Amino acid sequence: MMNCLKSIISAAVVLTSFTCYALTEEANDPLPSWNAGAAKQAIMNFVRITTDATSPEFVPLEERIATFDQDGTLWVEQPIYSQLIYCLDRVPAAVAMKPELENIEPFKTVLSGDREAILKLTLSDFEKIAFATLTDMSVGRFQAEVRDWLATAKDERWRRQYTELTYQPMQEVLKYLRANGYKTYIVTGGGQDFLRMYAEQTYGVLPEQVIGTAVETKYGYTENGWPILMKEPKLLLNNNDAGKPEGIYLMIGRRPHASFGNSTGDQQMLEYTKAGHGARLSMLVLHDDAEREYAYGPALGLPDSKIGTFTQALYDEAQQNGWVVISMKNDWKRIFPFK
Amino acid sequence: MMNCLKSIISAAVVLTSFTCYALTEEANDPLPSWNAGAAKQAIMNFVRITTDATSPEFVPLEERIATFDQDGTLWVEQPIYSQLIYCLDRVPAAVAMKPELENIEPFKTVLSGDREAILKLTLSDFEKIAFATLTDMSVGRFQAEVRDWLATAKDERWRRQYTELTYQPMQEVLKYLRANGYKTYIVTGGGQDFLRMYAEQTYGVLPEQVIGTAVETKYGYTENGWPILMKEPKLLLNNNDAGKPEGIYLMIGRRPHASFGNSTGDQQMLEYTKAGHGARLSMLVLHDDAEREYAYGPALGLPDSKIGTFTQALYDEAQQNGWVVISMKNDWKRIFPFK
Repeated sequence: MMNCLKSIISAAVVLTSFTCYALTEEANDPLPSWNAGAAKQAIMNFVRITTDATSPEFVPLEERIATFDQDGTLWVEQPIYSQLIYCLDRVPAAVAMKPELENIEPFKTVLSGDREAILKLTLSDFEKIAFATLTDMSVGRFQAEVRDWLATAKDERWRRQYTELTYQPMQEVLKYLRANGYKTYIVTGGGQDFLRMYAEQTYGVLPEQVIGTAVETKYGYTENGWPILMKEPKLLLNNNDAGKPEGIYLMIGRRPHASFGNSTGDQQMLEYTKAGHGARLSMLVLHDDAEREYAYGPALGLPDSKIGTFTQALYDEAQQNGWVVISMKNDWKRIFPFK
Repeated sequence: MMNCLKSIISAAVVLTSFTCYALTEEANDPLPSWNAGAAKQAIMNFVRITTDATSPEFVPLEERIATFDQDGTLWVEQPIYSQLIYCLDRVPAAVAMKPELENIEPFKTVLSGDREAILKLTLSDFEKIAFATLTDMSVGRFQAEVRDWLATAKDERWRRQYTELTYQPMQEVLKYLRANGYKTYIVTGGGQDFLRMYAEQTYGVLPEQVIGTAVETKYGYTENGWPILMKEPKLLLNNNDAGKPEGIYLMIGRRPHASFGNSTGDQQMLEYTKAGHGARLSMLVLHDDAEREYAYGPALGLPDSKIGTFTQALYDEAQQNGWVVISMKNDWKRIFPFK
């Protein structure tokens, strides 16, 4: 009887939510931070044709998958990725644990605090820093360290916590897609474990819907025989470039119907998405707003950037294949939730 | 006339009440294929205390994760795993594609059809057979081959499709947990891609909730420039033993609140589950019913088995740590959905 009652109540709640949502949708704009234009229209059209049961492009509920890059697509990635700042901030603690690192590179340079020298470090240097600060520890310790840092660290330009520097228009897209039955995944070149520490609170994305670069984890026991998972200094998944569709296939097993990126690292994910049958949406955020955020390409003659490179070739591929380029400057009414 | 009408109405009311009562009684037992006993009670008690908002053991909706081994826990694994039969069935086609395999072992033995010799092949032989029949092909071709096989292949003892040989009592547990907000995952030592082909239809488990052994997948392009994913002959995840909690951490990022297994390959998953704080349920299916299914251990003096080994040490660990052992013979009223 109770179960029966519960079912009726659940059904009523679902119906009410649905009705409320439908009414709200009519009255309100689900993407209020977007200017009217081709980008906004592409998103709304995609949702309409894939969720209307009478549409030839209708997508069944369980197949509604949307994937989002994070850095530069959902939040700020300049002047360097937030997770790299975390790693740099953790170097003194890592060196305290392993004093033999103090006088060897790249740790010596990081400890010197010479900002210009740090920004000149190579990719291989940053990999060493990442392994030294993110691995060789239990999952529990890693999570505690990240939690502490997220609560206190601030971006230099806006003087706000990193998790505040998300793009309001993209937050609206995440919510709009979810309200229409889409499961929203973040598919990041950054660390999966790192993003999982704040994805739920910051984006409403559950840990199991975060796919990222990952090291091996090793199951073992503490001295007291208690099960423990250790983060090993060995790369398991490099979730960049071709690694993105490969990661999506591994973790989801289905091709997304919509994908959002902003750089050459997202090219293959957007190709893979668009190559599916029926309605597929591939979109790229172009950072062309130096005043409100940053401007970098080098597509369309924008300044070149090592972080989040958006080449002219990527722009041309987007034009050829019907991907939609979002101009931050023209398509977004506002950039951040806090303004 | 009025009296007559009254009688008819009364009779209708009585009938309606009776029907409602009978239906409610049935609906009230979410596990009708389970006999009353400690196992059934453990499941119902776990659900009650983790979903009642006033309970100190209450688990928030988004943290309700339950993981199930497949072979021997959700469906029959004797005399050998269904996926191995698939691989053996595919050997002639694999040899047709690569004639150089015809005269080398273990392919020669498989092609001979000598059943006894095939059952004597080593684990390393079976690995070679698995790589030859499951990899070095596009994801699309793999899926088409599995789909065809699933539609026609039949088990020798029951003369039914393999996907019919699931355990009705466990199907009820899957549904009961989902009805109470749990996300149900299958965590199998078998191939993730293989199981994803039927998990939704057979168990109501979506592809993204299947975690299994996986090879690397490589993104590339066809001659026409079309994106394609290839299954590579290189192991990425060995989802057995310690690989199970490692796979759960990789794919879900949270510790399950309930786990179900049946063999030593599930030991670490059950340990990991039970080591969490609050209410955690770890259960093991013991195959002690030779008449209705199979009997194997060697725990409790049951016959030894290379497939799905349930050692006495595992049984003892279960007793010590409050895991619940399910006796197929005593706890299950019926075994299969079709009987």
